[in-house]
Amino acid sequence: MSHSEIDRQHNDRLERLRDILQGGSVKHAARLLNSLTPGEIAHLLESLPNPGREILWEVVGPEKEGEVLVELSEDVRLDLVSRMDPEKLLSLTEGLDMDDLADLVQELPHTVTREILQSLDVQNRMRLESVLSYPEDTAGGLMNPDSITVRPEVTLDVVMRYLRRIRDRVSPATDSLIVVNRDGKYLGMLALAILVTRDPEETVAAVMSLDVNPMRPDLDENQVASRFEQHDLLSAPVVDEQGYLLGHITVDDVVDVIREEGEHQFMGRAGLSEEEDMFAPVMLTTRRRAVWLGVNLVTAFLASWVIGLFENTIQQVVALAVLMPIVASMGGIAGTQTLTLTIRGLALGQLSGRNTKWLLMRELAVGGLNGVIWALVVGAIATLWFGEIAIGVLIAAAIVINLISAAFSGALLPMLLERLGIDPALAGGVLLTTVTDIVGFMAFLGLATIFLL
Amino acid sequence: MSHSEIDRQHNDRLERLRDILQGGSVKHAARLLNSLTPGEIAHLLESLPNPGREILWEVVGPEKEGEVLVELSEDVRLDLVSRMDPEKLLSLTEGLDMDDLADLVQELPHTVTREILQSLDVQNRMRLESVLSYPEDTAGGLMNPDSITVRPEVTLDVVMRYLRRIRDRVSPATDSLIVVNRDGKYLGMLALAILVTRDPEETVAAVMSLDVNPMRPDLDENQVASRFEQHDLLSAPVVDEQGYLLGHITVDDVVDVIREEGEHQFMGRAGLSEEEDMFAPVMLTTRRRAVWLGVNLVTAFLASWVIGLFENTIQQVVALAVLMPIVASMGGIAGTQTLTLTIRGLALGQLSGRNTKWLLMRELAVGGLNGVIWALVVGAIATLWFGEIAIGVLIAAAIVINLISAAFSGALLPMLLERLGIDPALAGGVLLTTVTDIVGFMAFLGLATIFLL
Repeated sequence: MSHSEIDRQHNDRLERLRDILQGGSVKHAARLLNSLTPGEIAHLLESLPNPGREILWEVVGPEKEGEVLVELSEDVRLDLVSRMDPEKLLSLTEGLDMDDLADLVQELPHTVTREILQSLDVQNRMRLESVLSYPEDTAGGLMNPDSITVRPEVTLDVVMRYLRRIRDRVSPATDSLIVVNRDGKYLGMLALAILVTRDPEETVAAVMSLDVNPMRPDLDENQVASRFEQHDLLSAPVVDEQGYLLGHITVDDVVDVIREEGEHQFMGRAGLSEEEDMFAPVMLTTRRRAVWLGVNLVTAFLASWVIGLFENTIQQVVALAVLMPIVASMGGIAGTQTLTLTIRGLALGQLSGRNTKWLLMRELAVGGLNGVIWALVVGAIATLWFGEIAIGVLIAAAIVINLISAAFSGALLPMLLERLGIDPALAGGVLLTTVTDIVGFMAFLGLATIFLL
Repeated sequence: MSHSEIDRQHNDRLERLRDILQGGSVKHAARLLNSLTPGEIAHLLESLPNPGREILWEVVGPEKEGEVLVELSEDVRLDLVSRMDPEKLLSLTEGLDMDDLADLVQELPHTVTREILQSLDVQNRMRLESVLSYPEDTAGGLMNPDSITVRPEVTLDVVMRYLRRIRDRVSPATDSLIVVNRDGKYLGMLALAILVTRDPEETVAAVMSLDVNPMRPDLDENQVASRFEQHDLLSAPVVDEQGYLLGHITVDDVVDVIREEGEHQFMGRAGLSEEEDMFAPVMLTTRRRAVWLGVNLVTAFLASWVIGLFENTIQQVVALAVLMPIVASMGGIAGTQTLTLTIRGLALGQLSGRNTKWLLMRELAVGGLNGVIWALVVGAIATLWFGEIAIGVLIAAAIVINLISAAFSGALLPMLLERLGIDPALAGGVLLTTVTDIVGFMAFLGLATIFLL
């Protein structure tokens, strides 16, 4: 069998599973399902509307249920958890890594959480409580407190014999061991690639890496992700203020953070959560979306109110009503470009006091130049359309004004929001178009009232 | 020194570097710069406007220049490369990994590329050409052709002795070795964590993992990323149709793919590229943005043209001009929500023939319900505002029509675009608002013309 066939089979499997579920042959589905990883099963569950999702979930083998739940997006997970009884929930948490267990525990009913804590031995309970004591979106919340540590004074040969002894605790995905002193203070990292390439008689201290900056547990998860990206890390230690090792973060969790951050920015712009379930019930979805539509309605009425101020002007020159959406729309587009660039800059930590001024200047220049270019184009078209040069001049002026004000608010709004602790990815777009609508209508209709009547 | 201080110092370093560059003390900057990773230097360069960026680039140590270039976003990289002479370019490519070299080579002048190819030995030239023969955004373009391979019949002890011998070729970030037969056909993966925990007398064949599906070189990079995410991989083999090993992909490159995919969706919505340089020259930026504003202008004029059809109606009932942006805006927002969800579903590969119908039905139901809710609210407000129940009824009807059509186009447009080979993240938003503007104005003003006059 060629590998291209393996590839095709892999995709086919997902499709076939869908077919089978559609048809209802559950036993057949179970066999196929067992050949998938928890991540793949989660992906499949997310792509299935009910009742397919429920049927598939019933079929997932008990040994995989916990890991599948961890891999699911929040909305889908809550949907499934809400329909399981406490005993089942308790049993599927067995065998999970401490960081995964911590993620899950926060979304389970309190009674189940208490039982889980009681079922753990003292060491594991302390570990779980340590992860739970940090917010989910920090290094502390991401870390796995169950780290494999070695001492600096032992030889590599001793380390290898130790690893063989604790074989069951060593995940195949382990890339590094953490070097700590007798008190548990962090000293350095020992990559397995170093362990296996150096002379077994050398000591850990002689070959360990000091390059990795340990992270503090309160470090924001997005900053954790930047560190991983900028240092090409596979894992990193988390230490407390005194330098004691608390646990380690692995790149597979960081990959999820980066994915979620991207989705957060993308979905947030439309007032959606990155955890949004594509197949959530209609009523739930309607309610959530209604909130965003309501927020937008307030800004739309603001724009309408501005237009209403000029009812008299519009009645005399109807061409204004025909052309006014163009002014607002060009401002909205130009402002969104600046806003988008600024939000990304902030998210990547590339905007700080000094260069914001530079960015603002550049955006104002770009806004002004594009304002002039498109003012000429739109002005010419408007003049030809309505056969009146005054209308062309007015719309040209309004476009220049709106594009400059759009650049200004596109650059400053996200920074202001961030300083106020409001998420610019969520609120930035609505506020920006409020500004560009109001400025656009006000400039165009206001100038017209002054100069045309 | 406590670790919290290390943390603070890390951030301070970046700030101090900016200060120093502002002040112009280049020597001091050089010392600080040498303590940073290539990824951090790239991040810093991206956050600096010129001339600071040029000054800083001069200061980067020659041994790091190549890796820094690789880490930069495309626009910034091209900016720097365009100002370097061929000799310098040639020298900084020395010592780069083959996959990084391949990325870089595609953006260098042809004369430099030819010289680079000539400077490589036969094996490396063949490797480089193999990576270059695949598009950048595929598994083949991502892979590093320089893989460490072992045979299945040898014992782990022999593998370890072999690794010590080739120590210089083994990167500290290596997590797995690739098992191939005598002909170079892929057989399985040997994780270092397995290598160090099993009995040294066991054979590779006995402990290697068969779980990892090898990837074909033409696999799209976003699918590569999904595989890594769903299998929690650190590295994965790439094989040709006959199953011969071509190279391997590592998670650090996949992290970049995921970051870029997120930024592509986020930035694309505003007509920006994910490679956009925040501090690109004003003229270049103006020209690029002008294109997007021009595209938008066409759609804005379309909307204006629709309004123009009803000039007569508006002249008689000016309230229509005041209220019409509300209808268009509500449709745009509701449609964008559906569009965003659909684009994400497509990007994650969670939408296929079967469940699209389900999604469309759900979105139509949500659109209809929210249409009715907000139609009532807006209708009531409009009636009170203009003291005329007919206007309230008309705007209510128009909102229901526009929200349902918005749900319809928000769900179908991205799928249609994808089938046509057009990127929905880029074109979807513009097309959608064109639809919601036109339908909104047409419904509201058209109904008014029929029923009010």
